[in-house]
Amino acid sequence: MNFKLIIEYDGRDFRGWQIQKNERSVQGDIENALEMMCRQKITLHASGRTDAGVHALGQCAHFRCETRLTADIFLKGLNSLLRDDIVIRECTEMPENFHARFDVRNKIYQYRILNTPLPSAIDRGYSWHIRKKLDILSMQTAADHLPGKHDFKAFEGSGSPRAHTVRSIHKAEFEKNEKGYIIFKIQADGFLRYMVRNIVGTLVNVGLGRITAADFRQILLSGDRSQAGATAPPQGLFLLQVNY
Amino acid sequence: MNFKLIIEYDGRDFRGWQIQKNERSVQGDIENALEMMCRQKITLHASGRTDAGVHALGQCAHFRCETRLTADIFLKGLNSLLRDDIVIRECTEMPENFHARFDVRNKIYQYRILNTPLPSAIDRGYSWHIRKKLDILSMQTAADHLPGKHDFKAFEGSGSPRAHTVRSIHKAEFEKNEKGYIIFKIQADGFLRYMVRNIVGTLVNVGLGRITAADFRQILLSGDRSQAGATAPPQGLFLLQVNY
Repeated sequence: MNFKLIIEYDGRDFRGWQIQKNERSVQGDIENALEMMCRQKITLHASGRTDAGVHALGQCAHFRCETRLTADIFLKGLNSLLRDDIVIRECTEMPENFHARFDVRNKIYQYRILNTPLPSAIDRGYSWHIRKKLDILSMQTAADHLPGKHDFKAFEGSGSPRAHTVRSIHKAEFEKNEKGYIIFKIQADGFLRYMVRNIVGTLVNVGLGRITAADFRQILLSGDRSQAGATAPPQGLFLLQVNY
Repeated sequence: MNFKLIIEYDGRDFRGWQIQKNERSVQGDIENALEMMCRQKITLHASGRTDAGVHALGQCAHFRCETRLTADIFLKGLNSLLRDDIVIRECTEMPENFHARFDVRNKIYQYRILNTPLPSAIDRGYSWHIRKKLDILSMQTAADHLPGKHDFKAFEGSGSPRAHTVRSIHKAEFEKNEKGYIIFKIQADGFLRYMVRNIVGTLVNVGLGRITAADFRQILLSGDRSQAGATAPPQGLFLLQVNY
């Protein structure tokens, strides 16, 4: 039997999704709970990794297991075994051939920037505080170059090159709310490592007036990582949704 | 000179406002930072204590100090010395006789309940999760008995009796939002220890149908702590504002 999980987690206390020796990982915690329920070692396959400190509201993963336990029992059992910074939001039985990574149609990430003179004590683990006023209009003008099929090599994390760096972005939009938050939502068929955080770091350079929206386009086209901005910090990033 | 601070803090990692031996307190952290800036021991007087795990968006406190440092320098200096779970939002020079506790006109607290079938991993430190559906209308009917001048002995924390337990409540209102949050706002000229959390715990009993709004009124009038509900957990409580 094949089960799909939709998972929320607070990334603060994890080394990331992927299992690590002697460090807490989301995958490790859930696999341990699954092992307790199934009395055998279970491997959990996510839609993709998230890095240390990155949060998820709708990460997806699947696991295969011959069991009499139902999806509903897994949902309740896992939530009672897991610590409270991981919540299983849904568990569904899937066709045998469903694969949480290979079958992804697209994913949506959100990045939260708090653009106010003072930081927030309460929200510091869930946003990137930027004191200086950002020009959201020019950031959106730059982001308008993202949708479509492009080689995103310029925004790939160094040290993690992939053979294939072309991805299709469907949407890349900023929203502002009255509390000083700037929310960036980006939807694509896939993401390279650090891609969202490198894009956000570079868009912030546009918002600060260090580079123009045209420069942003040129960086995207150049494929040159060294021209892009610094990687935005992890705590502003949320994996919102994975679509199949 | 006499300075007033408006302070935001995340209560998660503190034993509360009040200074404690060998434990982190908000007062202790700020007094240490003030001592570094003023090169002498400074005592900080808050509008009142908050308990372990309780948050503040607008706690107020004052300190007296003969110094050439300005309010603006205190604001910047304290924020650079303090860890990121305390943020000084404002620093203002006040008349010599201003006192952050004695001069309080009224205070506003907020209590956040997450009333959804599943808890939240991200928001677990900032709300009380209640799975069973609460009847917010009957909770508001009960809360409508609160405004006015009453003896709140029934809602005082045990082991901390005050001579004077009469307080005036100006407002006690529930609000619901589309994300499943029920927000309780209460404004009064003063609060007894655990008063908000004991009121919320008892109102939740109304919302769960365990007692009626009329029972709530009777508990308030009885002055009998043993009839009130359990103390609501600290992480849902925020000190929003102190008015002078």
